[in-house]
Order: sequence, then structure tokens, then C-alpha cells
Amino acid sequence: MKAIQPIRILGLLLLSTAALKGQESLNIEEEAFVIRQVYDLALTESSCYDWLRYLTQEIGPRPGGSPQSMAAIAYTQQLMQSMSFDSVWLQPCEVNYWVRGEEELVRIVNSEEIGTQDLRALALGNSVGTGPAGITAEVIEVQGLDDLEALGEEQIAGKIVFFNRPMDPRQINTFSAYGGAVDQRGLGASRASRYGAVAALVRSMTTRLDDVPHTGGMRYEEGVTPIPGLAISTNDAELLSGLLERGTVRVHIRNNSQSMPPQPSYNVIGEIRGSEFPDDIILVGGHLDSWDVGEGAHDDGSGCVQSLQVIQTLHQMGYRPKRTIRCVLFANEENGLEGGRAYWAASDAAEEYHMAAIESDSGGFTPRGFSCDGDDQVYTRKFQQLVEWLPLLEPYGLVFQKGGSGADISGLKSQQGLLFGLRPDSQRYFDYHHTPIDTFDAVNKRELELGAAAMTALVYLLDKYGLD
Amino acid sequence: MKAIQPIRILGLLLLSTAALKGQESLNIEEEAFVIRQVYDLALTESSCYDWLRYLTQEIGPRPGGSPQSMAAIAYTQQLMQSMSFDSVWLQPCEVNYWVRGEEELVRIVNSEEIGTQDLRALALGNSVGTGPAGITAEVIEVQGLDDLEALGEEQIAGKIVFFNRPMDPRQINTFSAYGGAVDQRGLGASRASRYGAVAALVRSMTTRLDDVPHTGGMRYEEGVTPIPGLAISTNDAELLSGLLERGTVRVHIRNNSQSMPPQPSYNVIGEIRGSEFPDDIILVGGHLDSWDVGEGAHDDGSGCVQSLQVIQTLHQMGYRPKRTIRCVLFANEENGLEGGRAYWAASDAAEEYHMAAIESDSGGFTPRGFSCDGDDQVYTRKFQQLVEWLPLLEPYGLVFQKGGSGADISGLKSQQGLLFGLRPDSQRYFDYHHTPIDTFDAVNKRELELGAAAMTALVYLLDKYGLD
Repeated sequence: MKAIQPIRILGLLLLSTAALKGQESLNIEEEAFVIRQVYDLALTESSCYDWLRYLTQEIGPRPGGSPQSMAAIAYTQQLMQSMSFDSVWLQPCEVNYWVRGEEELVRIVNSEEIGTQDLRALALGNSVGTGPAGITAEVIEVQGLDDLEALGEEQIAGKIVFFNRPMDPRQINTFSAYGGAVDQRGLGASRASRYGAVAALVRSMTTRLDDVPHTGGMRYEEGVTPIPGLAISTNDAELLSGLLERGTVRVHIRNNSQSMPPQPSYNVIGEIRGSEFPDDIILVGGHLDSWDVGEGAHDDGSGCVQSLQVIQTLHQMGYRPKRTIRCVLFANEENGLEGGRAYWAASDAAEEYHMAAIESDSGGFTPRGFSCDGDDQVYTRKFQQLVEWLPLLEPYGLVFQKGGSGADISGLKSQQGLLFGLRPDSQRYFDYHHTPIDTFDAVNKRELELGAAAMTALVYLLDKYGLD
Repeated sequence: MKAIQPIRILGLLLLSTAALKGQESLNIEEEAFVIRQVYDLALTESSCYDWLRYLTQEIGPRPGGSPQSMAAIAYTQQLMQSMSFDSVWLQPCEVNYWVRGEEELVRIVNSEEIGTQDLRALALGNSVGTGPAGITAEVIEVQGLDDLEALGEEQIAGKIVFFNRPMDPRQINTFSAYGGAVDQRGLGASRASRYGAVAALVRSMTTRLDDVPHTGGMRYEEGVTPIPGLAISTNDAELLSGLLERGTVRVHIRNNSQSMPPQPSYNVIGEIRGSEFPDDIILVGGHLDSWDVGEGAHDDGSGCVQSLQVIQTLHQMGYRPKRTIRCVLFANEENGLEGGRAYWAASDAAEEYHMAAIESDSGGFTPRGFSCDGDDQVYTRKFQQLVEWLPLLEPYGLVFQKGGSGADISGLKSQQGLLFGLRPDSQRYFDYHHTPIDTFDAVNKRELELGAAAMTALVYLLDKYGLD
């Protein structure tokens, strides 16, 4: 009997907290009907696909600080003003602004096998340029940052370092494979520079073998001489690696990308004030910026329009939230996270409590569930409540699993709420990520809508039952 | 105690059966390692994507009876002969052979609003032609077969009946939505003919709004005067419906599709003879034929190459099956199912026992699990064993659920085994199904490989542990 007692006491405590907050007891049958309504509306009456078309095809790519990013801010602000929010505002921040300039050139110049050959390349975000004369040097291939120390300055100085460790195709979740390779993109140029390299080439972050280069963020560590960093397509990485096996390869690189002075930007925020517990905030969001190639459709136009769709669907249901629902479209996630940081700072300063935050930033594919994160004790305690909701979500193929949420909301963890990430099927995400082919046509309408429905269902349950 | 007794007796019975068959007890940790190996190999060492490329891009569409279908039979037979099968053979059958002939014409001829306008159309499989003069008649829209009786011969005779009930977008599984609409395609023309209609137009079977017409099988019931049946794209269905709301519409149809004399064809079969229980057969398969448009990539080139991949992966693992594994690529599933029927008849005549059969015919998308079917008592008894395997499959996102398997294996149910269907994510299947855009490029390599890995894992468990 002794072992059972603590559980019983805990049960009483939960009951009394529930009573204090007027918490409702879960009626699965009734809520199944409501969740079904969420899906019916999302699949028949939603606007998110049309919003995505505008954002991607009318506005296009919208890197932080760019004129297009301002158009996206204005468009979504106007859109929010036409919706059922109680208030809509812009939250200012200052963002990094990097421009690619004219098209990159990465050319093999000394191959007897294949002659002069241009590789499909994209400068990495924040890369310095080569200057108009470009850089010509011998290439040395490595499998990762650790190889640099083994090779040492003697073998690296004056050369172009080629980081060629692929994403591991055996990972079922492609984000895990990405996590295992992206250090080369983020820090390759910076680390190589310490050993006297003149530039860095990085194998594109995808498991596909194709001709599409993938850009993405890189940074220079304190005190490092900045050298250019560029990604090449995986097919070209294979080609280059093959040539290097058989002899020396010299490559000419020219790019004139550069960092510009910081620019003013904004988070776009819409809020429905809670009717009963306005101090409990439930956030849904994505990031409005994208890289400068493609149209930023999966990354992260999808997350933005899904977050807006949550609000539209709740309104179509005639549901009046008890808690405060806030839709936040963050500025410049890709190149500095200044939007996120500004939001956290303001929120902490106002002593807000984000009971829950949900970010969609993993593409507009068929949702498989939510990752869930929180401070250890918070997580353990509150996760039990999520498990009770599973019978409502499993019919739609959704599960919860412990794991990181989204960069833009990560700083809210200290408020002791739960952070969620929408987790779509990950297989195709890195076909498109940070590329010229991340366009509207790559997003399937139903898959996008199902993601919005999943988010709406979770927001509804969070709002109605709280997390206490 | 009384209530428990039958279960204990059953337990003893199961034990003794297991002992008789030398059945092994399940070691989850050990098998988790093996299943991981299956996935590692499928994601790094598989050939199925290359096989699919050949089948779709080199051979192309391969309707039953066509020269291309014979090329596909020869190609996969040669491929099987190069693999680890103990024996490879062709099983003859005779198949329907229908040819589209020259491109269809479906033209609105009397619209004041939009003038003369051609609609994007495809004749349905088995449709008769209009003759060279074509057919011109007024269109009448219906929402399904039942509407015909209400309208009666008076309103239908001499007209073109337009079946316009959409697939229900609220269904989460798109196959359910398909099942709720496809009677219009299969029987629309036949039923309309009974009321004197001169032709039938059918809204394409997809939830998308786009310009892509979807063909597919139709048939004429006994004693009916055959009239042409054609599908139009959903965008054109919306257009036509809108015009009909505002006035009469006359349409001119011309197609010269026709049924040809039946042709010889073959199921392509490869077998690995079981080392311990050769009379227990485990079948993996798909259908080798496709419709005559596109390349039959998702339907069902994917299922064919995945079935072959199962064999390659088992071989790469060095696994020697205890039971007989048979890979069957069926003839003419799309237009008569004669391959399936021939296989069932021969199997029943030889008094074979298909302990399990797995068909992949739902597209090469990310697998979500398997449907499972069987005679009621068989199913109830054997499903328990599957549940024990779930901890091995759930890490790969797979579940079992009761439901139909695949047309080609459906006739094996009487052998008292279990029938499985690979169940991929269904959201995009009807974007491509029976269309010119069901091409190689529409299949994602990883998604295809994950499906093959799922099938291999299930075949491995079935082979090692049996189903008794």
C-alpha cells in the first residue's frame, strides 16, 4: 500500500489545481467530434494554400533585411488585420543583412580528365566574397572539422578545403542526418581559415545525389580571417572527390557576396485575448524570412501560413479561446534569430507566461506528430496530460515524442511551459531545404492543410484543458 | 478461475504447435539489430530506384497486352535471373488489350461565355470509340449513379451524362475518398447508357484542382449498348459545371479507343525455396502493367521494384529463408486482373499454402504500416502474433491495421493465410494515379527504399517466426 500513497496524494493535488483553474474533465467522444470538425474545416475551407501562393510566388524569397522581407511583413500584417485577431502589431528588431551579389563561379581549371568544368554552387549565408579577381588554388578534401588538425597548416595553408562528409542516409529521420553533417557548413570555412586555407567548399546538405546546391548559414569565429565558403551540389561533390582520388585539382572561385549594415525588421504578431485566463499564452508560429534562392515555400512559408490557418479554423468553428492565442511570424531565423531573441526578451521583461508554444518549421509535409520539450521537471509532469489526448490525435496519424521544438521559440523554455514542434514526414525536406527548388509547387495542398489541422487540434486542447 | 482455463489450454496448444514447427521465441533486442540492418542496407545498398528508372524511363507505360508490357516482362525476368532466386519462371495468362488510339477530343461547342473550348480529357480504359464523326450532344450533370433513375430516360436520352461527384477531401486516407467516388468511373457510362445517354464524362479521380485528366478502368454491364466514357480534369469539371449552372452546354467528343483481341501475357515469378518449411509460402508482389499514359511509376512500378528489393536485401544480409519466398509481378491488374486470377487458380490446384502474401500497390511513398486481412477466425488468431512484432516496427513509423491487401493477392484468402498491403502515406497518391504525370521523377528514392525496407522486415519476421 505504501507505494501507492504518493500517487494518490498527487492525484488529489492535481484535482485541486484543476478545480482552482476551473479545469474541465476530458470527454473523449465529445472532443473527437470537435477534432473531426477541425480537420473537416482545414481540408475544405482553409486559405493557407492561397496565402502560401502569394507569399512564395508574388513576394518570393525574403531574406532578413531584404526589401522582399518587408513586403512579406506588410502582407502578413494586412492579412492578420483582416482576420479574427483582437490586436495585431509589429515587434521591431535589427537583423543581419547579407546579399549574394552576382552569380557564383566555382570552376575546375586543371582537369585533364574532364577539362575545365563549372560546378553548381551557392555561396553560404554570411560568406565574404573573393573579390573580383577570384581565388584559384588546389583543393584538399576532408571528411569533417576534425580532419583539419590532423592535416595541419602544412597541408592546408594556401588551399581550398573541401568538406565532403555526406549526411548519413541510414538515419530514418533526415533531421538527424542533417544534424550530423551541418557543422561543416556552419564552421568549415572558419576552422579551415585557422590553418591558412583560402576558401572552403562544402558538400550540400542533402541525402540526394543531384545537381542542386543548398545554401545555408555559416559564421566566422572570433579573431578568424574570413575566407569564402560555398556549397556545391552532391553530384559535383562526387565528381570533385573522384578527381581528387586520381590527382590534384585546382579550382577557381569567384563570388561577391557581402554582409551589409544591419537593417530594421519586425516580428508580425496577432493576438486573441483569452476570455478566462488571458495570462496563459499559447503561441503558434513560424519564421517569415527565407534564404534568397527559391521561394521559401517549405522553409518556412508553410509554417507561417499554417500558423495563420490555426486562427482561421478556430474562428470558423466559432471557438472563443479561454487563453490568449498568439500567432507570431518571426524575423530572420535563418541568419541571426534576431526576431526570436527580441520576442523572448520582450516577453521575459513583461513577465509573460507562455503555457505552450508550437513552431512549424520542418516543412509542409504530412504531419506525423509533435516533438515536445520543456525543463526536465515541467516536461515530466505535463507530458502525462498529453498522453491523455493521444486517442484524439492518433486517428490522424499523430504522436508526441520528446525532442527540440523550433529555434524561434527555444528561448521561451525558461517560462516553464511546454514547447512543441510540428513534425511532418521528413523524407523530402532536404530535397528542397535552402535551394532554388523550394518553391510553391513543391508543397502539396492536403499535406499543408493536414499540418495546420494538427496544430489547430493541439491548440484547441491546450486552450480548453490547459497544462497544469 | 474458470474464465482463465480456456486461455491456459490455448496457451498449451500454441506451445505444442510451436514446438512441432521448431518455432523460435522472439528476442526483441536481437531482432531489433537485424531490422536495423535491413534498413541500413535498403537505404545504402539497394538497387530498386535504378530498376524503377529502367522500368519507367526505358520501357515506359506498359498496359496489359502491349508490346511494352512484354518488354517489362522480359526485363524483370532477366533481372530475377541475375538475382538470388532458386528458380524463375513465367506463368502464362490471357489478358484484355485495349488501345487508346489517337488523342481524345472533348470540346465545348456552344458556349457564349467562353466560346469553343477544349477540355483536358482521357478516354477510360475499355471505352468504345465515338467513330470518326464523333458525338455532339447536350450535357447533363449528375452527382452519381443514383441520380440517373431520378432523372429518367426522358431527361437523359440523347445526352452526354457528366458525373461530377468529387472525391471527399475530408477523408484523411485518400483511398477512402477514392472508394467513395470511383463507381462513377467504373460504371457511369454503362448505367447512363441504359437511359439512352450517348456518352459519359467523368470528373477525374483526385482531390486536387488541376489540369491533369485521370484514366482508369470502366466496364459495360451485360446487355448494355456501349457508349464512350472519358475523364476530364477537375479544373475542367469545375468549368463545365459552372457553365451548366448558367445554361445549356453542348459538347463534341471524339475518341477512337477500342478493345483488341485478347493477348498472351505472363506473371513473372521468382522463388527461393524454403530450407525448413518449403510448403509455407510467403509472397511479395506488385503488378507489372500500368495504364498507357505516364510511366506507371507509383502505380505500380514502385511495388514491383520494392518486391524485388526484398529479395536483394535478404541476400545482402546473408539470410537463408526457412520458408519459401516468392516474388510475383502480376499481369494486367489494371484491366482485368487476369494475372492474379491465373496465379490463384494454379496455386489452389497445386494445393499450395500461402502463409502470407504482401502486395505493394499504393505508391512509393513513405510507408506508414501494413493493412492486414484474412478469414475472420484466421485473422483474429494470427493478428496477436503481429502485435508482438510491433516494438520492432514502430521505430520505423509502422503499424498494422485491419483492411484489404491488394487486388492481385485477394484471391489467396481461402488458403487461410494472412494478406498484407504496404500502406504508404496516401496524400499524394491521387495526384499521380493513372495520369501522364505518374513518372519516375514523382518517386522519391528514400521513400521508395523505406517501403522496401518495411516489406523486407515483415518478410524476415514472417519467415523466421511463422504464423501459427
